Amino acid sequence: MKALVALTLAATALTLCAPASAQFAKPEDAIKYRQSALFVMGQHFGRIGAMANGRAPFDAKVAQDNADIVAEMAKLPWAGFGAGTDKGAQTKALPDIWTEQAKFKDHATKLEAESVKLAAAAKTGNLDNLKTAFGATAASCKACHDSFRAK
Amino acid sequence: MKALVALTLAATALTLCAPASAQFAKPEDAIKYRQSALFVMGQHFGRIGAMANGRAPFDAKVAQDNADIVAEMAKLPWAGFGAGTDKGAQTKALPDIWTEQAKFKDHATKLEAESVKLAAAAKTGNLDNLKTAFGATAASCKACHDSFRAK
Repeated sequence: MKALVALTLAATALTLCAPASAQFAKPEDAIKYRQSALFVMGQHFGRIGAMANGRAPFDAKVAQDNADIVAEMAKLPWAGFGAGTDKGAQTKALPDIWTEQAKFKDHATKLEAESVKLAAAAKTGNLDNLKTAFGATAASCKACHDSFRAK
Repeated sequence: MKALVALTLAATALTLCAPASAQFAKPEDAIKYRQSALFVMGQHFGRIGAMANGRAPFDAKVAQDNADIVAEMAKLPWAGFGAGTDKGAQTKALPDIWTEQAKFKDHATKLEAESVKLAAAAKTGNLDNLKTAFGATAASCKACHDSFRAK
């Protein structure tokens, strides 16, 4: 029984490690990848925020272009959080990411869904729709950061 | 006449500066943005290269997914090379980027076009098509790096 447990654990560890090692040459690449994807997304999201918060004039075309990029970028960072990527380079990612995988994945899925809604809202060309969707998306960023990112 | 020239130069400088200052809060953000976009693109491009060069087994779906991301990412970095972003953070970008704008833009346009062809090649599900398109895309990366990136 003990051997079976050990074998199962070993197999699970292998499965968890496979995606990261298959996709990234080393943990620091995975960390740089997720930070890069989040930074690019954040820049485009910030431009929508500037319009939603009245710091920049509303331009429907600019909002739509940026929201489309946010929706594409929102799919990417998660592959960079594979097993074994909790260290290897400077990172604000908290260990809970790897001990509370289901919760972390819920946050990731939520952001992806909100960013799709944001892109749809931007397509309507209506600033109020954009503001509402921006707020919901920003809340999903914050919820994940509050739980899983170091201050 | 001198005043007109000065005015024209001032106006040109303003126009050149506008995109960068409008999009990025500070030059270091633009530099980090372009480096991030290029890094994300490079990771996905590298996975196609591994298949094209026989270092990884060919998987048509994986090739297609990665090529689609490369084609999207290839549109992004150029906005991060606005006027005034030649310094502000560590960068391998050579000054020639800003003195030979037409040539630099040709390289950017070429990469975008090759990455669209790469995505189309990946969609055929044929490894030989992928190899050919990967080679052409890699050549366009290299040509730009040879001219505009420090060793």
